[in-house]
Amino acid sequence: MLNPADADFLTALPQALLRPVRPSDVEEPRGRWQGQGRAVACPQSAEDVAALIRAARAARVGLVPLGGGTGLVGGQILTDGPAPLILSLERMTALRAVYPQENALVADAGAVLADVQAAAETVDRLFPLTLASQGSARIGGLLATNAGGVNVLRYGNARDLVLGIEAVLADGSILRGLKRLRKDNAGYDLRHLLIGSEGTLGVITAASLKLFPRPAAEGAAFLVVESPEAALALLALAQDRLPGMISAFELIHRQGLEFLAETMPQVRQPFATRPEWMVLVDLGLPLGIDPEAALSGLYEAAGNLVQDGVIAASAAQRAEFWALREAIPAANRKIGAVSSHDISLPLSEIPVFLQQAGPLLARIGQFRVNCFGHLGDGNLHYNVFPMPGRTRADHENQREAVKTCVHDLVHGLGGSVSAEHGVGRLKVGDLERYGDPVKLATMRAIKQALDPDGILNPGAVLRG
Amino acid sequence: MLNPADADFLTALPQALLRPVRPSDVEEPRGRWQGQGRAVACPQSAEDVAALIRAARAARVGLVPLGGGTGLVGGQILTDGPAPLILSLERMTALRAVYPQENALVADAGAVLADVQAAAETVDRLFPLTLASQGSARIGGLLATNAGGVNVLRYGNARDLVLGIEAVLADGSILRGLKRLRKDNAGYDLRHLLIGSEGTLGVITAASLKLFPRPAAEGAAFLVVESPEAALALLALAQDRLPGMISAFELIHRQGLEFLAETMPQVRQPFATRPEWMVLVDLGLPLGIDPEAALSGLYEAAGNLVQDGVIAASAAQRAEFWALREAIPAANRKIGAVSSHDISLPLSEIPVFLQQAGPLLARIGQFRVNCFGHLGDGNLHYNVFPMPGRTRADHENQREAVKTCVHDLVHGLGGSVSAEHGVGRLKVGDLERYGDPVKLATMRAIKQALDPDGILNPGAVLRG
Repeated sequence: MLNPADADFLTALPQALLRPVRPSDVEEPRGRWQGQGRAVACPQSAEDVAALIRAARAARVGLVPLGGGTGLVGGQILTDGPAPLILSLERMTALRAVYPQENALVADAGAVLADVQAAAETVDRLFPLTLASQGSARIGGLLATNAGGVNVLRYGNARDLVLGIEAVLADGSILRGLKRLRKDNAGYDLRHLLIGSEGTLGVITAASLKLFPRPAAEGAAFLVVESPEAALALLALAQDRLPGMISAFELIHRQGLEFLAETMPQVRQPFATRPEWMVLVDLGLPLGIDPEAALSGLYEAAGNLVQDGVIAASAAQRAEFWALREAIPAANRKIGAVSSHDISLPLSEIPVFLQQAGPLLARIGQFRVNCFGHLGDGNLHYNVFPMPGRTRADHENQREAVKTCVHDLVHGLGGSVSAEHGVGRLKVGDLERYGDPVKLATMRAIKQALDPDGILNPGAVLRG
Repeated sequence: MLNPADADFLTALPQALLRPVRPSDVEEPRGRWQGQGRAVACPQSAEDVAALIRAARAARVGLVPLGGGTGLVGGQILTDGPAPLILSLERMTALRAVYPQENALVADAGAVLADVQAAAETVDRLFPLTLASQGSARIGGLLATNAGGVNVLRYGNARDLVLGIEAVLADGSILRGLKRLRKDNAGYDLRHLLIGSEGTLGVITAASLKLFPRPAAEGAAFLVVESPEAALALLALAQDRLPGMISAFELIHRQGLEFLAETMPQVRQPFATRPEWMVLVDLGLPLGIDPEAALSGLYEAAGNLVQDGVIAASAAQRAEFWALREAIPAANRKIGAVSSHDISLPLSEIPVFLQQAGPLLARIGQFRVNCFGHLGDGNLHYNVFPMPGRTRADHENQREAVKTCVHDLVHGLGGSVSAEHGVGRLKVGDLERYGDPVKLATMRAIKQALDPDGILNPGAVLRG
């Protein structure tokens, strides 16, 4: 059992590293939970982090690492049990070095994603991790949760963008792994173990990140398709014609467009009649291939796979297309979901899932479903909303049934109920229900070996 | 302390799974070590592997997993201590399923790489892992060692080509992780922990692998450069002009061409005068870009970075270029190296390394150096040979000094002394000398937690 981070514990810490708790430290974007904590520690170096962890371990006090606070599964929020020390990386924002010739950049874990993107752009390179929260999400949190986003199809998940990490482990030792090597088979890959462990095995303090050439030209189109099957066929066609050039392939359902019309009428919609399904195709192209020509070529080759389309005629219009896509989660929040699901499926099972999920949900009640997301990665956000005139509060007693219905179906089709958001505290029970028991036992053995007192992000991923 | 796999132990195993030891089971390609073992177990399923591991654990007998036996660091060979049970995956060669629409393939761990490549080709897809031993290397060994090869620049290391794995752990439990998902953040990434652990944490029994579109066209050129600096500048230029289209970028030194001329005169050399340095650039291109035009465009744009060049005029000529490149290791073996080094460096440190290594080695003795390899990945094979008329045996007492000289320099420049071949048994001491102590302690804690009796590949990676 852990002890609370009480006055005695806090008094013994270096006071210069502490600040009071602000409301934003203990809230999360969907407003589901209220966290707790009496103080926030703001280290300025890996050595500071190590000292704080050693103090916490000696006192058996839990530590909750905090990045930008944009996580959607409560990994940054401890709602009950002994009050933890919140460990914010907000003062460790340095971009330590940029190596344009090596396509590498070394950043402190508190660096905000948008700042890393901008630093890469300054040297004519691309750091491709892209998601709606990039203006506040910090590198440490993005790696701890192995963030996804819209460019995974082309560049991979966050873990695929990392050459090396520096992290502080539960005994206060500092793992110095900031190498800038493309190949390094010198022992177990602890980088990938820590990435995605959501702060339960160590606190990432810095990372060396991969940069990429910036595409010579970019382009985007909204293309109307009849069904998810047609969208998948279009994806295969696009990959054949434009291999390695498709940066994103996003599925959007009419429900999302209707929520936008209802809650954010200022967002311009691309088609006079809102289509049942459409995709946003985004291209990054080398010299010599024209985006509009590539997209109109795809449109023509698609034949009756595509019913209508609009190709961005300028960078401004492409930005407008993306603004619509990125506004969908905000509109969803204004409507208020009964239950949100961050799922992934083998690509060929997506149509099966979508055919079966609706009828299964109808047995529970009447809902509106907004299904959208990263079709190219098999990652959908399948979010269930009340009918007009009702609110999420009206469905409070159905939330668990809705979630279980969706997750059981996903699991039965070989999918994951945590595609890109992670487990956090929201899905600890799901992991126990759906996770391979051998995987869970192995995770617990590793957690026990590396953090025997359970001080690092207690209750996240694994039950404490 | 482990017990030997003696007659009593072997008699109690299912006899249908056993066969006698053949010489090839206990040899390795460079003929450095002679392994031991009284029997080879050849399981036909993950359940067989589990039963064998449970028996070994109960008897505290060591198990050495054996794939194609092509490893270069002795990971597949136990030379001393109690005789282990050799566990060969040779009967588990099924290609379980191919999913062309999903760009995925599921293979048993005993499948030979060339067969996986061929199965992908049958459905017009590419499995890009490519290395000289692909006709014998098996998927399980390739993943256990996180193999590299010539296409890492474009497609990543072996670990980057894996969607999921099935593996048997040291307690005989079967980790069922054969998902075909591009995004899955449901708990710690055990896949990446097992990949590259060289059979010390579990035995991989199957994998779901990523496939890729086959390039519409391919091309290759030998380009003569003055120096490694010029080769790096050419690489940067090529990446700018042909982003994501460079499949390989291999550096070749004159010494390699001379060894070829000496030991394999039938290999046709591209230039009448053997150049000091040249690169082999290999392209995989989408529809609409002509390989010869792309390569001659690169040649012209390179200006005085490139002194001479020859562009393959046909698929046969491209194959001939690659045959030369792949013959270099064979020629090296005929000469007989004093010491071979599989190193990686940050790209910008490569010229520094090459400037400093020669003079440092000259303090030890007179040698010929053949430096070649995957420049695009910062991965060089820096192999040290006797002068003409002398043999490796003449330098037996200098081998350690040569290795230490090269490895100290690499380590000091932020590189790795095990880039793609792994640690095996050859580099256990190097890992102890150069590895981050915190990383080593963490590796030992994980090994202890998952294999407390130390039965899995004893003495590989970590000292037993």
